[in-house]
Amino acid sequence: MDINLNADLGESFGAWRMGDDAALLRIVGSANVACGFHAGDPLVMAQTVRLARAAGVSIGAHPAFPDLQGFGRRVMRLGADELAAVVVYQVGALIGMARTQGLAVTHVKPHGAMSNMACEDAAMATTIAQAVKSVDPGLILLAPALSQLARAGRAAGLRVADEVFADRAYTDDGNLVPRSQPGAVLDSSAACLAHVLRMLDQGGIVTASGKLLPTRFHSICVHGDNHHAVATAAAVRDGLLAAGHRLRPLPDLPDLQG
Amino acid sequence: MDINLNADLGESFGAWRMGDDAALLRIVGSANVACGFHAGDPLVMAQTVRLARAAGVSIGAHPAFPDLQGFGRRVMRLGADELAAVVVYQVGALIGMARTQGLAVTHVKPHGAMSNMACEDAAMATTIAQAVKSVDPGLILLAPALSQLARAGRAAGLRVADEVFADRAYTDDGNLVPRSQPGAVLDSSAACLAHVLRMLDQGGIVTASGKLLPTRFHSICVHGDNHHAVATAAAVRDGLLAAGHRLRPLPDLPDLQG
Amino acid sequence: MDINLNADLGESFGAWRMGDDAALLRIVGSANVACGFHAGDPLVMAQTVRLARAAGVSIGAHPAFPDLQGFGRRVMRLGADELAAVVVYQVGALIGMARTQGLAVTHVKPHGAMSNMACEDAAMATTIAQAVKSVDPGLILLAPALSQLARAGRAAGLRVADEVFADRAYTDDGNLVPRSQPGAVLDSSAACLAHVLRMLDQGGIVTASGKLLPTRFHSICVHGDNHHAVATAAAVRDGLLAAGHRLRPLPDLPDLQG
Amino acid sequence: MDINLNADLGESFGAWRMGDDAALLRIVGSANVACGFHAGDPLVMAQTVRLARAAGVSIGAHPAFPDLQGFGRRVMRLGADELAAVVVYQVGALIGMARTQGLAVTHVKPHGAMSNMACEDAAMATTIAQAVKSVDPGLILLAPALSQLARAGRAAGLRVADEVFADRAYTDDGNLVPRSQPGAVLDSSAACLAHVLRMLDQGGIVTASGKLLPTRFHSICVHGDNHHAVATAAAVRDGLLAAGHRLRPLPDLPDLQG
Repeated sequence: MDINLNADLGESFGAWRMGDDAALLRIVGSANVACGFHAGDPLVMAQTVRLARAAGVSIGAHPAFPDLQGFGRRVMRLGADELAAVVVYQVGALIGMARTQGLAVTHVKPHGAMSNMACEDAAMATTIAQAVKSVDPGLILLAPALSQLARAGRAAGLRVADEVFADRAYTDDGNLVPRSQPGAVLDSSAACLAHVLRMLDQGGIVTASGKLLPTRFHSICVHGDNHHAVATAAAVRDGLLAAGHRLRPLPDLPDLQG
Repeated sequence: MDINLNADLGESFGAWRMGDDAALLRIVGSANVACGFHAGDPLVMAQTVRLARAAGVSIGAHPAFPDLQGFGRRVMRLGADELAAVVVYQVGALIGMARTQGLAVTHVKPHGAMSNMACEDAAMATTIAQAVKSVDPGLILLAPALSQLARAGRAAGLRVADEVFADRAYTDDGNLVPRSQPGAVLDSSAACLAHVLRMLDQGGIVTASGKLLPTRFHSICVHGDNHHAVATAAAVRDGLLAAGHRLRPLPDLPDLQG
Repeated sequence: MDINLNADLGESFGAWRMGDDAALLRIVGSANVACGFHAGDPLVMAQTVRLARAAGVSIGAHPAFPDLQGFGRRVMRLGADELAAVVVYQVGALIGMARTQGLAVTHVKPHGAMSNMACEDAAMATTIAQAVKSVDPGLILLAPALSQLARAGRAAGLRVADEVFADRAYTDDGNLVPRSQPGAVLDSSAACLAHVLRMLDQGGIVTASGKLLPTRFHSICVHGDNHHAVATAAAVRDGLLAAGHRLRPLPDLPDLQG
Repeated sequence: MDINLNADLGESFGAWRMGDDAALLRIVGSANVACGFHAGDPLVMAQTVRLARAAGVSIGAHPAFPDLQGFGRRVMRLGADELAAVVVYQVGALIGMARTQGLAVTHVKPHGAMSNMACEDAAMATTIAQAVKSVDPGLILLAPALSQLARAGRAAGLRVADEVFADRAYTDDGNLVPRSQPGAVLDSSAACLAHVLRMLDQGGIVTASGKLLPTRFHSICVHGDNHHAVATAAAVRDGLLAAGHRLRPLPDLPDLQG
């Protein structure tokens, strides 16, 4: 089976470093690039795009609320017009940066609180999906499987790549177990790989209680901001290859086409 | 003769208004749109692009230093990589916004201190010209006539539109008389129009002392941020039309082509 | 009766002007000074403090969420530690500025969404009240009458000045009619004055339906950001003086003492 | 001899960590706390002040240009009024934060480009010194020995603590060798300690060429942002103690008094 690995990259800012982008880019097929609102600055973006190009990794915009201090993780309420404009601005900024390297931006994945809120709020999800489409109807929306965001993307006529998380436990209604609860984050590479393989085998999200929520998914997110991120990403990649899967950049996944 | 009128627009921010964009858009052929670093925010940009489209006015990016508090007018020293990235980011953001209205960004004009410094600093001018070209070699660089910036744009192979200012007095070496000096800003619509017509007649910049600095120019900047901006812009437009000139958006000027 | 008039001031930012601070400072007894997070910048703050000193107006900090683009009016969710730190930082910044003019900051009034949320959320209100007290237990908390914020201030042992709004209609549960509804904002100076006198006569908030919510109050807020702000403020002042009331800065109100 | 060790602390921001503040606070006598303009945010400041209090370390404000993206290291040109206001604002913010822990801010040390520029520009140095004095004439100005900034502080009547850098080479005119040149930064703890002891023995700054620039100094800066920062700071401290010096917080140095 063709599948994609994605990670959030380019989350340094100014003098501050975050994550090991160079290492992750040797593992994943697609990178979600911070666009300056929660992390990233123009120079970091330029460097991230250059690294991604060298690694043959497809790039997407990772737009967020305008909240550098809160890393885009704080709930904010924006009007629909404002939210759409904020998404368009960030996607455009990455398009400009990508062009300087002869690259195209091929997907969009909302970040942090913007994503979490849109996964449950159908109106917000629709605003985001329409904003993405208004920039380029060929963009892929990378969104959590079974979310309002994924639904709104399809309703808008976008290609949608459904994603699951390698290192996060799920509740029985398909949401992520909040980070404040024990067991929310799977803490070993082995556990993450097992979790991913189980979901692939069973054809859906396997929740913390063991329940199966049937869904297809196209992409697996490996987080970049914890201490064993690179090891986990490598373990998931190696395990998937060993199980016979093929790892592809998002635009090369055949079944997003229809 | 075909000539262009341009103005800086979209310089509101959040709750704060600046300028009468709707009125100026009925007068000028091209708008330099603030991109969020010295003024403008995503929502203001979206509204400005929409107004420009309705008015049939061509749009360009108006990139600035990251200095909202100083309106991009404060000298800042950025490394060349940083400067290039900052320009690319802002041009890209406007490209994204323009696409949502089916528009293309057709020119770039640096703002404030970034422009002033690049007009005298050849290395900085080259960095900016190359950055613009790296996003899109078809972009027009709108730059003060006789400046290092205009020179660098041509050296980079960009189309360059030389501009003069309707409301500013010039020194004998072709720079603007600093705002701190008396007579720096022409304070009546009649004086601005006379200044413009004299430069057109004589074929160059006419300085405060009456000296002629021969140069062709393609565009006349009418500033939007003083109290008689709209009246001056209208007087310049009317006077040019009465004198038999044709007013065109920048991309429609024939002699930029080669 | 001794009563206070207060207004939000210093809400310009960089090149952008807002309100007629000089005119309002000739009318009100106390100024709520923006501290750089939703409006105001260090230079604007310095100028506002200087004007307030010249006018003999007492000054208070007007802390807000870190949201310049949204003018502090957008809902944001901050952790309690973060919220407390954000309040302390802004109050401190104004204390520094006031010292340069030999002034003391004598009150604190939260702004926009921070205030609205704290008026209904007892935990948030307590965090804010404790933060204010931690900087200086002698500070007066200026808070809407009957709100959780006023309650939390008293519970923390702060002096609390209850305020009502001259130009806003109230619901029967004591909240402001949302701006999105017709009649939310009283649109003439005469209507504002009549509203204020009625509340003083009846001894409480008079709601849009005519219901009385009995409460004492010490201060009347006249907003500075609409077109007839100065005229309304002057009309309220003149009407109160004509009715025999004495207008005082907040720290001179005797009954806050216990 | 009584001497002080100082370090720049609290330079994390939001989700990004920088330096090992807890370790350095066990070594130095005084901390220069970032105030939100180049680094630090209100929550980071609150935590830094709390740690400093627990460690018995005196605190000072470390004001910078408003340039988070450039870490306050980029040249910016501000008007004198603006510069003064920017300094006052940041010192005030730290005063507020310190009060919540029952601490006083006892010194001010400008950061980065603001410091570098003021060390050579007498007018700028005077503006900063007067701004510091306007907040509190009892504040100590911590400034590089032999600089315009130190001179302006004394001329303003402030107590001035002259500092030298443990890990930086000096030119023969008393400036720091630019970081772009080889040998600018001493790269071992042993070299730093030897440098410091030599300057103490000889009674002045010893330049890279071996020349002596006689000057007294009161404080030694150990930088916090390189990989061997903590080891170097510990080596300098141990060496100074072994040589019979006494390490004191800035306000406890007797000879700043007159």
